[in-house]
This record gives sequence, structure tokens and C-alpha cells, in this order.
Amino acid sequence: MDEKYSIAVAQSGGPTAAINASLAGVFRRAALCPEIDKIYGSINGIEGMINDVLVPLDIILTSENDIELLKMTPSTVLGSCRYKLSEYAQSENDYIHIINTLKAHNIKMFFYIGGNDSMDTVLKLDKYCKALGEDIKIIGIPKTIDNDLPVTDHTPGFGSAAKYVAATMQEIIRDSRVYSIQSITIVEIMGRDTGWLTASTCVLRANGEPAPHLVYLPEAFRDGFNMENFLSDVEKMMKRYRAVIIAVSEGIVPSDHDYVKTGADAFGHTDNSGVGKYLEKACSKRFGCKVRSVELNVMQRCSSHIASLTDISEAEKIGSAAVDCALEGNSGRMMCYRRISSEPYRIEITSCDVAESANKVKYFPESWITPNLCGVAMDAVNYFLPLIQGEPQVIYRNGIPVHFRINT
Amino acid sequence: MDEKYSIAVAQSGGPTAAINASLAGVFRRAALCPEIDKIYGSINGIEGMINDVLVPLDIILTSENDIELLKMTPSTVLGSCRYKLSEYAQSENDYIHIINTLKAHNIKMFFYIGGNDSMDTVLKLDKYCKALGEDIKIIGIPKTIDNDLPVTDHTPGFGSAAKYVAATMQEIIRDSRVYSIQSITIVEIMGRDTGWLTASTCVLRANGEPAPHLVYLPEAFRDGFNMENFLSDVEKMMKRYRAVIIAVSEGIVPSDHDYVKTGADAFGHTDNSGVGKYLEKACSKRFGCKVRSVELNVMQRCSSHIASLTDISEAEKIGSAAVDCALEGNSGRMMCYRRISSEPYRIEITSCDVAESANKVKYFPESWITPNLCGVAMDAVNYFLPLIQGEPQVIYRNGIPVHFRINT
Repeated sequence: MDEKYSIAVAQSGGPTAAINASLAGVFRRAALCPEIDKIYGSINGIEGMINDVLVPLDIILTSENDIELLKMTPSTVLGSCRYKLSEYAQSENDYIHIINTLKAHNIKMFFYIGGNDSMDTVLKLDKYCKALGEDIKIIGIPKTIDNDLPVTDHTPGFGSAAKYVAATMQEIIRDSRVYSIQSITIVEIMGRDTGWLTASTCVLRANGEPAPHLVYLPEAFRDGFNMENFLSDVEKMMKRYRAVIIAVSEGIVPSDHDYVKTGADAFGHTDNSGVGKYLEKACSKRFGCKVRSVELNVMQRCSSHIASLTDISEAEKIGSAAVDCALEGNSGRMMCYRRISSEPYRIEITSCDVAESANKVKYFPESWITPNLCGVAMDAVNYFLPLIQGEPQVIYRNGIPVHFRINT
Repeated sequence: MDEKYSIAVAQSGGPTAAINASLAGVFRRAALCPEIDKIYGSINGIEGMINDVLVPLDIILTSENDIELLKMTPSTVLGSCRYKLSEYAQSENDYIHIINTLKAHNIKMFFYIGGNDSMDTVLKLDKYCKALGEDIKIIGIPKTIDNDLPVTDHTPGFGSAAKYVAATMQEIIRDSRVYSIQSITIVEIMGRDTGWLTASTCVLRANGEPAPHLVYLPEAFRDGFNMENFLSDVEKMMKRYRAVIIAVSEGIVPSDHDYVKTGADAFGHTDNSGVGKYLEKACSKRFGCKVRSVELNVMQRCSSHIASLTDISEAEKIGSAAVDCALEGNSGRMMCYRRISSEPYRIEITSCDVAESANKVKYFPESWITPNLCGVAMDAVNYFLPLIQGEPQVIYRNGIPVHFRINT
């Protein structure tokens, strides 16, 4: 690599509040390298590499101000995709297109910011390049509000989602307590197969808030989620609290034959959304009191206006570290956070073989689930708390947060 | 009123982010009056007056810090109710209890912070006291995120709800645009009979954001909301935008015979929530593309973490002005904002006969609805913008906003 070369970066999977901060990290670090010529953004993840739809980032990000706005803009400024590469032994077509794009633009490094599925793409592409003997460095930069990637202590985007969920849960708790009547409020929280984000509502305990009184994570119900047990838990809490607050992961699947999962994406993941409404109806029927369900929906993955400063800063640093990792000659790696200590909170940024993470899921530890299966242990509070600390400065114009936008 | 006397204040109806700021205003102003002895808070609105459940506010709010936290705490710290007083000619029972409570504590002024229904209580109670010849001043302090109270230019609580809705809508817009496929996103926004809050999403235009592309307010569909017309509007927008964004008021009632309204409270108001999901299903069926509906739910009335500084400051001032209004010898009045100008934004605080507002509804002006019935005029942008300006300083502890709490 004596001569100048270019690099490309893409974003994939579901949006988060921190995925653009990682893009900013890649851009800022790469812009400091004299050997790096152009820094391309691939539009709509790997689709942009397949179809040669690239934008030179330096003509989009023209100032430090642009980069700071980008860091506080949720979702993926370069678009995203849920495109799954075939095994190249089965179909080489996409791979040939990607290699053509890489060669056409003299791209020697490709950074893919994404979750479990995107790491699958990194793994496959790296294998293909190595099989071909192409000197292309492929690096994965994790992101997901689900916090379910193995090896890394936590994932960029999770801290901001957890901060939004905690702040919003606290507001819902205030809202639910106003009337003198018995009530039940069920808050449905994202997390496809894992309960990390739902469990993170336990951080409210640090400020003396006992709610949510019941917390349901998919990890606790591998043998099925029994509705009678659930209703019995709720009934017990109704004796203690006028306004019972329940946090339930969208990944909970009641074993009732009435409950139907819907949809499925390219990776075969079903859309579980709707369990909150289902539990609401069951509570209404059983208890006859005021019952409400709230779905935090996409807001929990894009609420930059209440992002975690720790998350945004770390997300930028891990993007920057990914460039260093490639410059050191690595490929087929996923960047990771390693926690050195929780008090005081200290991490270092390392990397792992992407095969250790691709298509794998890190579950919420069973040892952090209370024996009654509807609560989480204090160890979890200590794990989560550092991740939601700090508030980035949000720039407002006309009373509304300013987002960085490009027309794609 | 030569001797010392006490006052009472209560909160009623649905929560807002600003209702505690009005309580702070009453408390701060009354605390400066040497003739006022105790300042009582009535627990759960008028129910506390009927059942003599009062708390002395000075033993709860012990410092300026407490008051500042109170101002940034959403919902009603004194609880709320949806209790409707009978006409006293029909049943005097509640009134006798209230008068007993007033006399037992030497209360000469009663401040009721609430919406349309609470003003009905103010009106009835004032009439009763006057009929009895009791020298009790009854003053209504408006609040509602619906912005649907007559006479006042806008209502305390509305600006904060509008700021939350605008910021969240903008984040949902970012989120919705990530994929390269056609999509439709429907955001259901509160507003029982009126479209003020849904219409307020037009403020995004001030920052160059064209979405939401379609805005549906109940005021535009007095003759029925035709599903075919709706689907035709959406189809037109799909030709222009890959990600179509729709803001729909919960008060929209499709004229389909399949659409069923649910529930009804003590005031006979039905719960319309669910129209977003209904429209989602209709779009899915018709267009077969990715369709999502998002219900902003209770978050839009309690999101103090992104309150409007203008709203919170005004809400405190109107609480304070209510005490002045009573001190001047008035009763049966509702406090009002009068807008002097929009640019620069200036208001004054006045009052009106509560009969002008009680049980009445201020609708979104038809002249601000575009002729195609699915958009709002620039006049509305200019009306809404001043109300969402400024960001109060939120106090965080452990990464979470600090709320003021009392155990009631």
C-alpha cells in the first residue's frame, strides 16, 4: 500500500442514535491519513457496493460543524439495508459486483457499521477476498440497540436507547400514578431475542424508583411464557401498588394458542411487536381495572434528543479505532469494547475475529434474572448505569433539534 | 378578608408537562402574601376537596430547589381525577362536603388547574358559593395538551407536547427513510376532538423538512373520513416520496362500518386511540409495501425531558397571575393568555368568565386547513412556532432526569 488508495464505509440494519457517530469516527480518522485518497459512503449498506452507488463523504461533510451535527442525527445518513449475501460457493454474483466496485474506485478498506446480520456480511466478504487473494481490509463496526453482539461489552447505540427508555419509563410512571384508581401499565420494549433493553429499565432504581415492578425478558422464558403465571405476578403487585408498571420485551411469546407472531424479514426474524397489547387485553379481562399498553416503537432507536454522551463519544471512538485496525493490516475483525472497570467506568477498544460475533447472539445473563423470573439483579444496574451517563449538547433551531441531512 | 386565611389548589384531568409549573406559580405567589396562612394541595383534584384529603404544600416544597424540580416534573404531583360534579340543584351532597372542607381549613380561595371538564367544576362551584353567599374565590387555571380551550390564545402544556411531537416526528422521519424500498409511516397523535397537536407537526417546515406529507385533523372531516379518499391521497404521495409520512389525529373516525370506537369516561368522551393501526392495515392491504404505525401515546403529554421553556415559564406565570386575580376579588374566572404579537412573540395574561370556556371546545381554524383537507397553512406554522421555543435546564442524576416526588 505505498500508493494512495480510497476507503468505503456503509451502514446497515436497524437505525440507532449512535450509528452516525461511528461514521463520523471513521471519517475523521481516515481524513488524517495522507495515504487515504477518497472516503466513500456506500448508499443503503452493502447494496451500494453491489450497485456501485457511492458518495464521496468529503463533499458531504464539509466542516467540523457538519460532523458534529451528523453525530447528533439519528438513523443512518447513508441509508441502510437488510440484504443478506449468499454463500459465494452458491452464488458469486453479488461478490463479483462488489469487487468490481472496490476496484473501480481503488478501495482498499471497507468498514461496515451494523449488527449481527451485518457481521455476517463482513465475515463472508472477508472470506471471499482472502480466497481471491485480494488485499482488501474488511472491518465490522458494531451497532445495535439490542446489545446482543457477542465479545463486545456492549454495543454502540445501546446506551442512548437505554437512556431514552429509562427517561421515558420514568415519565410514564409519573403519568400512570395520577388517578386514585387501580391501574396497570404495560410498556413494550424492543429486543428481538434478548432482553437487554427491557432489563435496562432497572437503572431507575439508582434514583430510588421502585418501578417497573415486573420485568419480563425472553431469556427467562425459554420454556414458554405462561399467561396464568403472568396474571398471578400482576395480581400480587396489585396488592402492593395502586399503579402497577410492567416492562415487557417484544421478544416474549405467550404460549397461548391465541398468540400469533407476524411477519419475517430477509434474515428470517419475525416481528414480535404486539405482545404489550396482548397482555393488556388479558389483564383487562382478568382484573377489569384500567389497563394501558405503551409501545415505545421506533422512538427507542432514534431518540437523539436524549442520547447518552458516553454512547455517542464511544461510538465515534470505535469508528476511529476501526480505521486504525485496518491500517495495522487486519481484516475480518469486529471492533469491540472491553470493560476494564465499572467504578470508575473505564473501557478499551479492541477487536475480535468477526466469526466470533457474526450470526451469534449474546443473551442477558441468567444469573442476573431474579428467581421469580420477573425482575433483574443489582449486578445489572451496575452494568447498565455507566452506559447512559452524560448528555451531549443538542443544537436547536426554531425550537427543534437540528439534524444533518443529505439527499440520497 | 382582614384576617389570615388559607388557600387550596388542585390539579385535574389528563397529565401534561407543565401542570406542575402552574402549581409552582400558585405556590410561589401565594407564599409572598402575608395574609395567606396555609397553602393546601388537594389530592386527586376535586376528590380531595370532597373527602378532605389536603396536604400543606409548605411542608412538601421546602426549598427553591424543590420548586425548580417540581416545575420539570411531568404529570400532576397532587394526583388527578376525572370526577364530574352534579348540578347542585340535582344533588348537593358533594357541594356540602366541599364547603365543609373549605370551612374546616379556613380556605378562602380555590385554584383548579385543568382542562375543559375542570372548568365545568370551577363554574359549578363558583355558582354554588355565590348562591350561598359564601365569600370564596374560585379560579380556573387552564392546562391541556389538546389546546382546545376557548378564549385563551393557547393552553399551558400544549407547547411542551408540541415540542415533543415535533422532535419525535423528525426522528421518526429520519428512521423511516433508511431503506431503499417504498414505505408508509403513520403517526397517531393525541387530541380528543381537535387537531391542534397533530397540526403542530407543521413546525418542521421552519427547518426545511417537508414531512409529514399528509396531515389529518378531525376538523376537516365533519362529514366523515372517507377511506377511499385517504388511500388516494397516500397513493399520490407515494409517487413523490419513497417514505411517505402521515400525521393523523386520534380524533379521526373512519366512516367504515368496520371501525369501532372504544370506551367512554365520566364525561362521555370516547377513547379513539387506534385509528393509526386501522389506517396501517388499510394501507398494507391496498399497497402491499412496508407500512408502520406509531402511537405517541402518553409520552406526548408527559415528556418533560424535552419541554418547551416558553411553555414552562408561561405556565408558572399563569399560576402566579391566578393568585393575583383572586386577590383582586374575582371569582368564577379562567386565566387566559392573550397574544399581543407573534413576531416578536409577546403575550399578556388576562382572565375571562369561566362560563365562556367550561364545556366548550376551541377547534383548529378551518381557514388554516388546506383545500385538499390533508395539510395546514403557513399561518399555523407562525402560530405554533413561538410556543415550542427554548429548552429548560433538565437536572440529571445517574444519567436520568430528576423528578420531584411526594408519597400520596
